[in-house]
Amino acid sequence: MKRVCIVGAGNWGSAASMIIARNMKRYDHFENTVNMWVYEEMIDGRKLTEIINTEHRNVKYLPDHELPENVVAVPELLDAVCDCNVLVFVLPHQFLHRTCKTLKGRLPPDTIAISLIKGIDFNEEGVVLMTDMIKNELDIDVSVLSGANIANEIAAGKFCESTIGYADEENATTFYEMFNEKNFRISIVNDIESVQVFGAIKNVIALGAGFCDALEMGNNTKAALIRIGLLEIQRFARKYFGPINDAAMLESCGLADLITTCLGGRNRRCAEAFGRADGKRSWEELEAEMLNGQKLQGTSTCLEVMKILKRDNAVGDFPFMELIHNVAYEGAPISTIVDFPDEHAPA
Amino acid sequence: MKRVCIVGAGNWGSAASMIIARNMKRYDHFENTVNMWVYEEMIDGRKLTEIINTEHRNVKYLPDHELPENVVAVPELLDAVCDCNVLVFVLPHQFLHRTCKTLKGRLPPDTIAISLIKGIDFNEEGVVLMTDMIKNELDIDVSVLSGANIANEIAAGKFCESTIGYADEENATTFYEMFNEKNFRISIVNDIESVQVFGAIKNVIALGAGFCDALEMGNNTKAALIRIGLLEIQRFARKYFGPINDAAMLESCGLADLITTCLGGRNRRCAEAFGRADGKRSWEELEAEMLNGQKLQGTSTCLEVMKILKRDNAVGDFPFMELIHNVAYEGAPISTIVDFPDEHAPA
Repeated sequence: MKRVCIVGAGNWGSAASMIIARNMKRYDHFENTVNMWVYEEMIDGRKLTEIINTEHRNVKYLPDHELPENVVAVPELLDAVCDCNVLVFVLPHQFLHRTCKTLKGRLPPDTIAISLIKGIDFNEEGVVLMTDMIKNELDIDVSVLSGANIANEIAAGKFCESTIGYADEENATTFYEMFNEKNFRISIVNDIESVQVFGAIKNVIALGAGFCDALEMGNNTKAALIRIGLLEIQRFARKYFGPINDAAMLESCGLADLITTCLGGRNRRCAEAFGRADGKRSWEELEAEMLNGQKLQGTSTCLEVMKILKRDNAVGDFPFMELIHNVAYEGAPISTIVDFPDEHAPA
Repeated sequence: MKRVCIVGAGNWGSAASMIIARNMKRYDHFENTVNMWVYEEMIDGRKLTEIINTEHRNVKYLPDHELPENVVAVPELLDAVCDCNVLVFVLPHQFLHRTCKTLKGRLPPDTIAISLIKGIDFNEEGVVLMTDMIKNELDIDVSVLSGANIANEIAAGKFCESTIGYADEENATTFYEMFNEKNFRISIVNDIESVQVFGAIKNVIALGAGFCDALEMGNNTKAALIRIGLLEIQRFARKYFGPINDAAMLESCGLADLITTCLGGRNRRCAEAFGRADGKRSWEELEAEMLNGQKLQGTSTCLEVMKILKRDNAVGDFPFMELIHNVAYEGAPISTIVDFPDEHAPA
C-alpha cells in the first residue's frame, strides 16, 4: 500500500495536490488520503493548515481553486511524512537541505521520492542535481517531474504535458499513476539528469530570446535561437552526464518548456528590458523593479554555466551560451547575440 | 564552371537572388552573373525586367531592397537558363509543371537544381513532392531548401537559418556555397523528403495552434501542441517515405519553421478567427476577408492528409491531426482540440 506525502504547499505543490488527490481515488494500491506538509502561517488570525483542512483552499498560494477533501494539511514535517512511503518534494530549493536533514533516518525503508523542484546547483566540481541532493541525504530512489507547466493553469485544468525522469522503472510507474490525467499528460524517460538540466538551462536560453525581442528581430530569428538553444542544452547534458536518453529533449521538459520560457516568463522579460536599456540598467535593478520579490534564475545559471565551461575549456562548443553571457555580463552590444562565429556553425 | 539561373522573381526569389549574387563573388568556380527569369509585367509603363536591370530593384515584389548588380533579369525562360547548369526553382507551384515542360530537353547534361517552392501535392497514390515533379520532368538531380524564413526579413539581413535537403552530397556542397551566409545559416541533411513534408504539414499543425489561441489556453498548452505536432509530422514522414534521417526534424525546416508558423502566419491567424466564430464562419469567407488574395494552405493540406490516412487505416496514429480535422471540417467544438484519446497518449 502506498501512502503519499507532498512536502511543500506553495503554488505548485497545491496544484500538484489536486491531481494527486484525484488519482488516489482511482487506484486500490494507494491510500486515499494525501498528506501535505504546510509550513504554518497565520492568515487573518487563522492557521493556514486549519483553513486548508476546513475550507479546502490554500488561500495564500492557490486561492482560486478548491483542493480535494482527501488532501490533509499537516504543520509538522515529521507528522506529515509519518507512515508515508511516497514523497513529493516541491519546495523552494533553499529549504531542501534543512528538510532532508529533518527526515534523515525517519523514513520507512521502502520510501521513494519525486522532485518537482526547479533549478540545479553548482559546486566546485560542477552541476549538482536536486535529485542527487535528496538521494545523498536520504538514500532513497528519487525521480523528477518537469515540464511546460504553470501551477495556476494546471489547477484550472488547461491541457498540458509533463515529463517524469526516472532511474527505477517500477517507481516511474507509481509516479505515472499519481500524476497522469486527461489534461496533464505524463511521459516517462529513463533519464533523471537531462530532465533537470533542461529545466534549469532553459532560463539561460530565455535571456537570449529576450535580447532577440529587444532587437525586434521577429519570430524567425527567435525560432532559430530556440532551436540552437535546444541543441546546446542537449550538448551540455551529454557533456556532463554522459550518453543520455536523447528522448528527453523532445519531451515536455525539453522542447515544450523551452518554447514557453522563451515566449513568456520572467527571464525573457527581464532580458528584453535589459536589452532595451542598452547597458544602462543592471540586472539587480531590473529584477527589483520587475519581479516583485521573485528572483531571476537565468542570470545566475548563466554565470555558473560559463564558469564550468571555461574551466573545462569547452566554451567554443556552446557559441550561443557564450554570446548570451557576453551580452549579459561582458558589455557586448545586444546586436551581437546572433554573431555566431563563422568557423563554428550553430548547433 | 557553374552558372546559376533563378527561375522565378517573386518576393522569395528576389530575396534569394541577393544572397546568391553575393556568394557568386566569393568563389572562382561560379560565374559572377546570376540570371533571374522574370515573368514580364508592365509597371507604370515600364517593363519590370528593365527596371530591375537599370535600378536594381524588384519594385513589384521586393521594393525595399536593392539587388546586387550581378543579378540580371531575363524575360524569356529559355534565354534565362541558356548555358546555366544550376537552376533555382522559386515560383508558385501551379506554374511548375508548365515551366518544366518548356525546359525539357533544353538543359546542359550536367544541370542540377534546387527547389525553394513551398508545399506538397497529393494524387491518388499519396504525397507528390515538388522535387519529384522537377526530377521526373527534367531527369536531373534536385535538392530542396526550406526553413523558418520570411523573404523580407532575409532581405533585411535578419539572422535566420535554413535547411538544404539533398540526395547527392556533392551537389549539396554547391548549394551550401550558394546560400550560406553569416545571417543565413545553412545546414544540410541527406533527406529530400522530410524537409518537404515538414514544410507543408506544419500548416496543418498551425491550424491547431490557432484553435488553441481562440480558446486562450496560454503558452503552455500551445507549446505542448507544437511538440505533439512536431512528432506527428515526423511520424507522417517516416510512414510515407520510410526510415529517414531524423535530423531534419531538429533543423530549421522542422522545429524552427513549425514554431514560427504556430506563432504568426496566416494559417494560425485564420484558424484563430475560425475558432472565435465558433462554427459560424466558413474557411472560404475568412480566407477572402483576411488574406488579401493569398490562399490558406493548411486547410487543403489537412483534407488531403486525412484522406490518405483514412485510406491507409492510420488515422489513430495521428490523434492531433485528427482532432484538427474534426474541428476544421466535422463541426467538432474547438474545445475538443485537446481531447486526446486516453488509450493513445500524445505522440
